[in-house]
Amino acid sequence: LSQGTDGDGNPYWEIGNTRRISTAQFKGMSLINIREYYTTPDGEVRPGKKGISLTLDQYSALLKAIPEVNEKLRAD
Amino acid sequence: LSQGTDGDGNPYWEIGNTRRISTAQFKGMSLINIREYYTTPDGEVRPGKKGISLTLDQYSALLKAIPEVNEKLRAD
Repeated sequence: LSQGTDGDGNPYWEIGNTRRISTAQFKGMSLINIREYYTTPDGEVRPGKKGISLTLDQYSALLKAIPEVNEKLRAD
Repeated sequence: LSQGTDGDGNPYWEIGNTRRISTAQFKGMSLINIREYYTTPDGEVRPGKKGISLTLDQYSALLKAIPEVNEKLRAD
């Protein structure tokens, strides 16, 4: 999976064939977006409906939860 | 922020007032859901439209990207 910069100059990292995690600045705030993208008939890549944009606080809370999420996934 | 088990018996961890990361089993597959929830007038908590459900492969790719995402966020 690759990484790059999108049409708005925001960095992204692929997490699946059609999914990305990206960062952006919005009104002076950092946002972290985890989203599915689709390709238009012209070949342009656009953000789809499945996804969520997190504030830094929400992203930090996500990082804190990851060890417990991983423990649960190992148990399943 | 707290954690718990939802009405379907799936574990969740709060990442914001209205947001959660949760795990579930679906057709024998583990899924990791990062989503916004809303409360109905009856006080029931329901999944909203903002969110994404990841397969294990996508979740693993997300974990691998995190160090670089964090580096970018520190630079911003």
